[in-house]
Amino acid sequence: MGQNAKDVSSLVVGLDFGTDSVRALVVDAATGEELAGEVAYYPRWAAGMYCDPAENRFRQHPLDYIEGMEAAVRGALAKLPPGTAQRVKGIGVGTTGSTPAPVDAHGRPLALGPEFSENPNAMFILWKDHTAVEEAGELNHAARHWGGTDFTKYVGGVYSSEWFWAKILHVLRHDGAVGAAAFSWVEQCDWIPALLTGTESPLRIKRSRCAAGHKAMWHEDWGGLPPEEFLVHIDPLLRGIRGRLYTDTYTAAEPAGRLTPAWAERLGLPPGIPVAVGAIDAHVGAVGGGITPGVLVKIMGTSTCDIMVVPRENLGGKLIGGICGQVDGSVIPGLIGLEAGQSAYGDVYAWYRDLLSWPLRVLLPESSLVDRETGEELHRQLVDELLRRLSLEAAGIPAGSTGLLALDWLNGRRTPYADQTLKGAIVGLSLGSTAPKIFRALVEATAFGSRAINDHLMKEGLEIKEVIALGGIARKNDFVMQVLADVLDMPIKVAVADQACALGAAMFGAVAAGLYPTVEEAQAKMGRGFSKTYTPDPGNAAAYRRLYQGYLNLGRMLEAARSVQGEGVLL
Amino acid sequence: MGQNAKDVSSLVVGLDFGTDSVRALVVDAATGEELAGEVAYYPRWAAGMYCDPAENRFRQHPLDYIEGMEAAVRGALAKLPPGTAQRVKGIGVGTTGSTPAPVDAHGRPLALGPEFSENPNAMFILWKDHTAVEEAGELNHAARHWGGTDFTKYVGGVYSSEWFWAKILHVLRHDGAVGAAAFSWVEQCDWIPALLTGTESPLRIKRSRCAAGHKAMWHEDWGGLPPEEFLVHIDPLLRGIRGRLYTDTYTAAEPAGRLTPAWAERLGLPPGIPVAVGAIDAHVGAVGGGITPGVLVKIMGTSTCDIMVVPRENLGGKLIGGICGQVDGSVIPGLIGLEAGQSAYGDVYAWYRDLLSWPLRVLLPESSLVDRETGEELHRQLVDELLRRLSLEAAGIPAGSTGLLALDWLNGRRTPYADQTLKGAIVGLSLGSTAPKIFRALVEATAFGSRAINDHLMKEGLEIKEVIALGGIARKNDFVMQVLADVLDMPIKVAVADQACALGAAMFGAVAAGLYPTVEEAQAKMGRGFSKTYTPDPGNAAAYRRLYQGYLNLGRMLEAARSVQGEGVLL
Repeated sequence: MGQNAKDVSSLVVGLDFGTDSVRALVVDAATGEELAGEVAYYPRWAAGMYCDPAENRFRQHPLDYIEGMEAAVRGALAKLPPGTAQRVKGIGVGTTGSTPAPVDAHGRPLALGPEFSENPNAMFILWKDHTAVEEAGELNHAARHWGGTDFTKYVGGVYSSEWFWAKILHVLRHDGAVGAAAFSWVEQCDWIPALLTGTESPLRIKRSRCAAGHKAMWHEDWGGLPPEEFLVHIDPLLRGIRGRLYTDTYTAAEPAGRLTPAWAERLGLPPGIPVAVGAIDAHVGAVGGGITPGVLVKIMGTSTCDIMVVPRENLGGKLIGGICGQVDGSVIPGLIGLEAGQSAYGDVYAWYRDLLSWPLRVLLPESSLVDRETGEELHRQLVDELLRRLSLEAAGIPAGSTGLLALDWLNGRRTPYADQTLKGAIVGLSLGSTAPKIFRALVEATAFGSRAINDHLMKEGLEIKEVIALGGIARKNDFVMQVLADVLDMPIKVAVADQACALGAAMFGAVAAGLYPTVEEAQAKMGRGFSKTYTPDPGNAAAYRRLYQGYLNLGRMLEAARSVQGEGVLL
Repeated sequence: MGQNAKDVSSLVVGLDFGTDSVRALVVDAATGEELAGEVAYYPRWAAGMYCDPAENRFRQHPLDYIEGMEAAVRGALAKLPPGTAQRVKGIGVGTTGSTPAPVDAHGRPLALGPEFSENPNAMFILWKDHTAVEEAGELNHAARHWGGTDFTKYVGGVYSSEWFWAKILHVLRHDGAVGAAAFSWVEQCDWIPALLTGTESPLRIKRSRCAAGHKAMWHEDWGGLPPEEFLVHIDPLLRGIRGRLYTDTYTAAEPAGRLTPAWAERLGLPPGIPVAVGAIDAHVGAVGGGITPGVLVKIMGTSTCDIMVVPRENLGGKLIGGICGQVDGSVIPGLIGLEAGQSAYGDVYAWYRDLLSWPLRVLLPESSLVDRETGEELHRQLVDELLRRLSLEAAGIPAGSTGLLALDWLNGRRTPYADQTLKGAIVGLSLGSTAPKIFRALVEATAFGSRAINDHLMKEGLEIKEVIALGGIARKNDFVMQVLADVLDMPIKVAVADQACALGAAMFGAVAAGLYPTVEEAQAKMGRGFSKTYTPDPGNAAAYRRLYQGYLNLGRMLEAARSVQGEGVLL
């Protein structure tokens, strides 16, 4: 009762720094119940500042995070009775990643100083920034040919242009001034807790195990980050940086420090409360969504991030090939966190929606398209309506009856065995292939891509007893989710928490504050359960078992055809 | 001078019975100059009578032909000074085909009698009617397994459901009354000249070599139509029909007879002038467009019909595999006429246009979509505008740069080696695959399909020195034609005559009337030349040589994958 009485009165704050906004959630530490939440959009980002989409350059100013966080926390607390904030006992933090920034010797991102305040290279390089494609290519080449250990082996064997070292090297090469001024580099999930806890020296910042392991090739096997020798082999410009980064890393269950009086004042929270070490949003969201061993959590949006946790002894030192990393404690302390994913999911549907709305965009001048009855402009609402109508019509087509088969690799393939050069396909086209039939084939293709991941993980010896889905697609599209359940031939539970990542962050805040001894106990008490379960239809599942073999055959065929033909010839 | 003086004063009438309408062209026999023309639409057909598109049943009432022909000829003559009609010396006829109808012992289509006037089975079964798919399948099976000669060998080895015998058998099976009342069967191109010349007995109708050879398995090798024994082997219902059909066939250069006084009166033409034997429109059009040995004439519309003529001695008895027939005199007397084609050409673009206009159809209620400035309804004009805009945008994309590769088999493959079960495909899709890029890939795919036909014919030893294009696509779409020239790496001349088929019919009328001794001389004098030549761009041609190999590979791969997997699995 004493423990319970204490819990009832305790609150925690979960912070989720997303791509466009930051969300603050004030949560009852005993039940996980959301008492108040607030979202604050990043003003500079919303204005398109510091970005160049044509060049895939996406940067974020640290002031967007600072101002956003302040507005979100204050906004959430303002919805609660006076004095409620005094019950907050801890803060947890999830952020995008890999989203690194250069910092000075005081841990301050360079863009916060006057010299670099408008320089995109001195800001956070957002996860989806692809300016470092060349550097990633060199890094992969070096990893395979330098003569020593392949340091990419725990991140799936292919280092991405979206990750830490590639981005650092790109900035060093293209902006000598920033390179010279950078004492060290931080991930977004490292910096926010450091900021809140007043941890100034980059050498004392408690670095996220999750970001380090999945994005920076940190691993116990080689005593932390890859050795200086390897980094210098990639490019001498990297010399000396490793020594100003870190050796130790921490799970999000540990406190990064305590909230400084100054930040307590700014946020309206009690000073001195623990702030948890940060972690990457998908991993934090998986915890908020209810991940446990045997469960695959799918965060379904434009792409998917698929997370599992496995007891170390179950894996027995085995290296899982073709995934995006296996890191001890990246999700839950004491368990190996696995990351996989599909490069495009909702993006496949968005591509098709944009394709079909080409005539609306090109032929109908926005200014002249009006509804005769209401006088309203139809443009935007039409495009929004399109996917809903396609889903409706496609849902009426029996499983496996379109005569079509598609490959979902429109943005390459992430898992299994990342290959960004692979492409999508639609075969079986006839003059009777209608827009809804093609949409259905694309939805089936994304589901087949999910099945290929599940099958790969199971072939590698992992047990998947259950799938939990989070994210926009999971919450919004019944048709897509039912096809996924039918194709996986496995029930899919949709987490009730709209804000699984913020809830997960709150759970970590609670553990870091000592309200629960383990993440698992926090999950057990604070978990919000599921809003819906999609159960496979046995007939559809049978139809899809056959069609899935076609998907695998088509993929193998096109992959092999491409690789034997050499450059220039598409097939 | 005497010959010339005579020509100057002589006119001929060309009749082109198309799918929707009949066109009459009054032509100067000396120059081919068009003096007047008129198109009359079939009223019953336009009203959708006797057809069921959902069942692919397309029938035409003989009254549509009679009334249309009368209106067209009278309409054309009405545009000329009084007395001009007296200078008309002959009539030529091209029609669709295979478009057979059952006739009574007086050569009258059954639908013209009171008993069957509203019975679709007693009417002309239009070329594109697909009700006889089952019967065609049985016929093909019989041809291969009955133990004797394969009577499909001169029509490419596969008998189509669109052809004569399959359609007859279908009616016999499904309409006993019509079967019992049918004394014989005629093709549309047989019946029109018989009607105009008063040839009543079906046994005396001069049958078209073109229709007989390409659609009814007529060949000199087996003394005409396939033997009774074979026909009865297919189905005993066919017993006795062969004997009430024909043994001899005639080229369109020969007169079928002379215009009866009654029909002269109805049409406003001089009685007693020769009417040429009929032929199928594509073949007649090829003559009007300027076909000679070494030239491939492409009639480009929803599908293509590709026609060549080859001196018998050049072919040396060789059987050309995988085409739609080789028939002595089907195009020009004394030359072997070859027919090939693509099952979908313009239809591929129409399919894509319909796909992209799905949102316009489904989301925008026709009644409420108006232009704010003009108040006009936008619906129809938007859909019409779509292909024009796609062509414009696609034309701006460099050859071979879309990253895409498509297969044009959306309606199966006609040549080489007909296989209606093959399907289309688009591979190489990425999130950057825009509507114009995909359109370009589809246009390239149809051109690759053309190239595959050219290459096949050349591999079979035929020489193609030149391509002449006719039809809607050839006249209307510069972009499509330029891509075709680049892919074929061969100049393409577009015939100046908008109405190549009616002009070709007029040429046959002139020869049948004795104004010219041969079709070749009629072509030389009456040919109208070319409006435009598309010259291949060497850079594009080189890019397409490479991409074409990809097209062939992709086709082979998908064809092979399908055939080894068995039923149910698409690949």
